[in-house]
Amino acid sequence: MNASLIMIGTELTRGIIQDKNGPMISRELTHLGVHVSQFEILPDDGTIGSVLAAEIARSGLVVITGGLGPTTDDMTRNVIAAASGHKLIRDEDSWNALVSKLGDRAYGPNSRQAMIPEGFTIIPNGNGTAPGFYGYAGSCLIVCLPGPPRELEPMLYDSVLPLIRKKLDLPDAERDEYSTFITAEAKLEELYEGIDPELDWGTRFQDYRISLYVSGKTRNERDAAISKLRSMLGEGRVVDGDTDPLTMLIDSLKRHGATVSAAESCTGGLASALLTERPGSSSFMVGAVTSYAASAKENVLGVPALLIEEHGTVSYECAEAMAEGVRRIMGSDYSFSITGVAGPDEDEGKPVGTVYIGFAGKDRESESIVLRFTSWGRASVRRRAAAAAFILLSMYIEGKSPEKIVSSWGYL
Amino acid sequence: MNASLIMIGTELTRGIIQDKNGPMISRELTHLGVHVSQFEILPDDGTIGSVLAAEIARSGLVVITGGLGPTTDDMTRNVIAAASGHKLIRDEDSWNALVSKLGDRAYGPNSRQAMIPEGFTIIPNGNGTAPGFYGYAGSCLIVCLPGPPRELEPMLYDSVLPLIRKKLDLPDAERDEYSTFITAEAKLEELYEGIDPELDWGTRFQDYRISLYVSGKTRNERDAAISKLRSMLGEGRVVDGDTDPLTMLIDSLKRHGATVSAAESCTGGLASALLTERPGSSSFMVGAVTSYAASAKENVLGVPALLIEEHGTVSYECAEAMAEGVRRIMGSDYSFSITGVAGPDEDEGKPVGTVYIGFAGKDRESESIVLRFTSWGRASVRRRAAAAAFILLSMYIEGKSPEKIVSSWGYL
Repeated sequence: MNASLIMIGTELTRGIIQDKNGPMISRELTHLGVHVSQFEILPDDGTIGSVLAAEIARSGLVVITGGLGPTTDDMTRNVIAAASGHKLIRDEDSWNALVSKLGDRAYGPNSRQAMIPEGFTIIPNGNGTAPGFYGYAGSCLIVCLPGPPRELEPMLYDSVLPLIRKKLDLPDAERDEYSTFITAEAKLEELYEGIDPELDWGTRFQDYRISLYVSGKTRNERDAAISKLRSMLGEGRVVDGDTDPLTMLIDSLKRHGATVSAAESCTGGLASALLTERPGSSSFMVGAVTSYAASAKENVLGVPALLIEEHGTVSYECAEAMAEGVRRIMGSDYSFSITGVAGPDEDEGKPVGTVYIGFAGKDRESESIVLRFTSWGRASVRRRAAAAAFILLSMYIEGKSPEKIVSSWGYL
Repeated sequence: MNASLIMIGTELTRGIIQDKNGPMISRELTHLGVHVSQFEILPDDGTIGSVLAAEIARSGLVVITGGLGPTTDDMTRNVIAAASGHKLIRDEDSWNALVSKLGDRAYGPNSRQAMIPEGFTIIPNGNGTAPGFYGYAGSCLIVCLPGPPRELEPMLYDSVLPLIRKKLDLPDAERDEYSTFITAEAKLEELYEGIDPELDWGTRFQDYRISLYVSGKTRNERDAAISKLRSMLGEGRVVDGDTDPLTMLIDSLKRHGATVSAAESCTGGLASALLTERPGSSSFMVGAVTSYAASAKENVLGVPALLIEEHGTVSYECAEAMAEGVRRIMGSDYSFSITGVAGPDEDEGKPVGTVYIGFAGKDRESESIVLRFTSWGRASVRRRAAAAAFILLSMYIEGKSPEKIVSSWGYL
């Protein structure tokens, strides 16, 4: 089942305001299993007349938003009537509703709002004067809705989606949702192909996670494919549901009633900024030190100068000493540290993407691990280093060993 | 002159992410006097093949975004080559750039990114692996750009808009460019109207600045309007050219060969993360402390417990003590501190948006100021607090008094 969306509004094509209806409607239609084959944003000037017939011919469903207002350049109704081969008639219920809402103002331009193509059905609008309507052009279902999101949104959820599911006789699609971290989207897509190209893999890339949707075939086959992906990426890299590394860490901290602090070098405060981004972070966050210069590592965190001289600042030893130092001065239950080479140039003879992460905790042995990220630029190395630190610290808090976990990781 | 925009991405048609490129491009094209007659959002699956020929026939300009990535469903290049009647060939410069960026990973799917239609010209991409390209199909100019906004945006402003103006022989409207900080876009637009509604004011909102373009009428009239805006917003809030607060601070630090450190409370590491975001920041950045808990302010920065008891952590006194404390432990030439109420709830009886910023320097009196931001949410308060600290520290380094400057500020 193919669907086309048409959004009408000159303020949209001029870039004055941004269309929010298209993404919302297409997300919901995709959810119902309808393939949205395109959406078009058109000016108010009747351009729809030149595209509607083609859309009706190739789609089983056309959803049109906007162009239903009282102004003369709103030609949507006429175009739909013409394309569906019906006359435009006055819907008496809508007309009466309009009169009772607007009084005398219902006459004149506003009266157009009660006109619909003959044989079409009104979709009531609880938050505005222009109702929507739906009907058929041949075998194509046409749904027409007002543009303002606060009018459209309740109509969509309350009337239109149930209507579409019923009219198009759609089954409830089964879909599993996961989140993956640190690996590049392009690499993931390559991996899916190797695992099971017949499944329907969907991804949504965000800064700190990729949301992964798997549908098609049987539940067993989907589970087997995800198990394979899990074993390729390693422990903690593919998790159920839609989540992200920061949420995982915060959940661990809250579950244990624990506090945290951070010592950052190459990430320069990014992990700290993320840890304090959400309201309520003062319940677990004590503080952080960005020890960017070696002198700051020595003077503030108490990393021994001799240790730096012997091992360098990008080392297991320095990462551990940073984590222990920040935990000591902040007095937190747990701490982590990040020191590495974010680029663009290598440092201390270590290539861009080399990142050491240290962990310390009350009544726990300190640990440190190294990750060797493929470099896709400074911002990406910093982002992935922070994500990895969050994942690994949350597992360290759960009593696991970051070293063991990292030994299972692939595709960094 | 009619233009069509085509945005490609299955995550767009499925409503998973929202297209931001279309509104940005159409706003800029409208600005140049080009009529954007429609824009279409299409999936990655080659659907563009069925619409491109029609768009070329009716438009003088077609701008296509997305569909240039390495995955197999990115068919954009082939479709454009076919529609313009050219073969797809490998661009050697792009290929060499790709190999030097990705090494072995350049082979396989990524290699597609160096292919362009014969006779087309590459548009370099400073922030990603896929370059853009442009060329002609008959008399229609086709411009093709990568989808990610952080790659597309600089390409649009640096290369594409000048190119389009030149190729389409559009009149060069005289346009003055400024940057403004901290004030909301909607508020600015309200201010323009009051200043001179006949000028053509354009804005481009980014995280830490609003780029402001003024055109129309005479140079004197434009200058008078900007002077008025400057006096309404206050010193340092409207600057010439396209810049941002971080760049202004870094320029000041470099000009004085000075180093910096930061103590952050409500911004939680955001200012530090920004200061270390760009390559080469180790030449001026020593380090930072996120002193989120009061205990961290006392134990790490040495803010006296008595001072906190007496004045609270959101106060002139605490801001100054934090700035002095971090400068002392980091040993930097200058330092600043940020302590305030980011929200969502008020704190210490102070409303959301109250932010104190402290400044300290070698051979300088410490100072602190307060800003009372209108609250548009936690992230926005944090962002504006960091921007204000950068602007004010750069002026403090130049020998000015933050207190005097802030007394001229309006519309926070």
